[in-house]
Amino acid sequence: MRTERGKLFVVSGPSGAGKSTVIARVMAARDDLAFSVSATTRGPRDGEIHGINYFFIDHKCFDEMIANDEFLEYAEYVTNFYGTPRQAVMDKLASGMNVLLDIEVQGAAQVRERMPEAVTIFLTPASFTDLEQRLRNRHQDSEEMIQSRLERAKSEYRAAESYDYIVINDDPDVAANELNSIITAELCRTVERIKYLEV
Amino acid sequence: MRTERGKLFVVSGPSGAGKSTVIARVMAARDDLAFSVSATTRGPRDGEIHGINYFFIDHKCFDEMIANDEFLEYAEYVTNFYGTPRQAVMDKLASGMNVLLDIEVQGAAQVRERMPEAVTIFLTPASFTDLEQRLRNRHQDSEEMIQSRLERAKSEYRAAESYDYIVINDDPDVAANELNSIITAELCRTVERIKYLEV
Repeated sequence: MRTERGKLFVVSGPSGAGKSTVIARVMAARDDLAFSVSATTRGPRDGEIHGINYFFIDHKCFDEMIANDEFLEYAEYVTNFYGTPRQAVMDKLASGMNVLLDIEVQGAAQVRERMPEAVTIFLTPASFTDLEQRLRNRHQDSEEMIQSRLERAKSEYRAAESYDYIVINDDPDVAANELNSIITAELCRTVERIKYLEV
Repeated sequence: MRTERGKLFVVSGPSGAGKSTVIARVMAARDDLAFSVSATTRGPRDGEIHGINYFFIDHKCFDEMIANDEFLEYAEYVTNFYGTPRQAVMDKLASGMNVLLDIEVQGAAQVRERMPEAVTIFLTPASFTDLEQRLRNRHQDSEEMIQSRLERAKSEYRAAESYDYIVINDDPDVAANELNSIITAELCRTVERIKYLEV
């Protein structure tokens, strides 16, 4: 059932939590949910496409967007900037689409402040040891980068209590089902549904 | 994932809303959810089994249970009494099982007062006209009974706004998926999950 105005869902979690896989499964399972493409100053990696994975823009352009208050949220991460262009999100919500953001914890805090009605979900493996194992298993980062990601993850774990929901990703099927269920449930909230009852 | 203490889910909705079918599907799909068997003073219908569908007890016994404060909630409906024996619910919750109650709106109000952490769900067809059609189609009630059920449903619809969620039962598969999703989502609430994060 399409609601009149869409709902905003925010997913955060430490690097290596398996967010992308879980989100991709949920996006594939729903036709009422749009993914918000972030803008970033970092360069594209192999296979990444402008407008699909990110909007790849330069620092000057990013600064202008900040100055014009064009971001719903933005944050610096490892010398690069990442941000959510506000207008695209607002247009989708106004059209009745629900929107999912995959952003880190500082960005999520900004969204929570500006749009307190947003539903926030923290996605992570249960244990820090699991997270470290995942980061090592993907053979993507240097030891220094792994240590830096783990340090960062510690502060991210402390932010978990500010989220509405926690999805523990020990099994991506279970985690995708949980994220999907959270979205379905939030669309059944009385405030969303009461207008459809006809007496 | 089994939580340490179970959660209480309350489903209400007008007679003819299709609650039993939807609840049966959800019960069949989950092994972490127990159905609370109500006590009633009405006699068993064909096929109903004591201890499965209801605990069939007499008025004297029901009055004693009221006097001993043994009901989590109780209410009178069409000259008979219905109530939820408290101890069975408490024991299941304490063991970590989640519990689902199928009770009417006055009973739900009592539960909400005594256990504000209970999650409440109103289940109904979208329109009153649909409800009337369902009551007629099941060829179970006299015209007088149908009118009485519809009158009652009007006041029940007015109680819908007090519930946390509304599930609109136009299709039992969709409704069962929504009820199931609500239960899954509520078990992902940060307050339930934060204790499992190990940093």
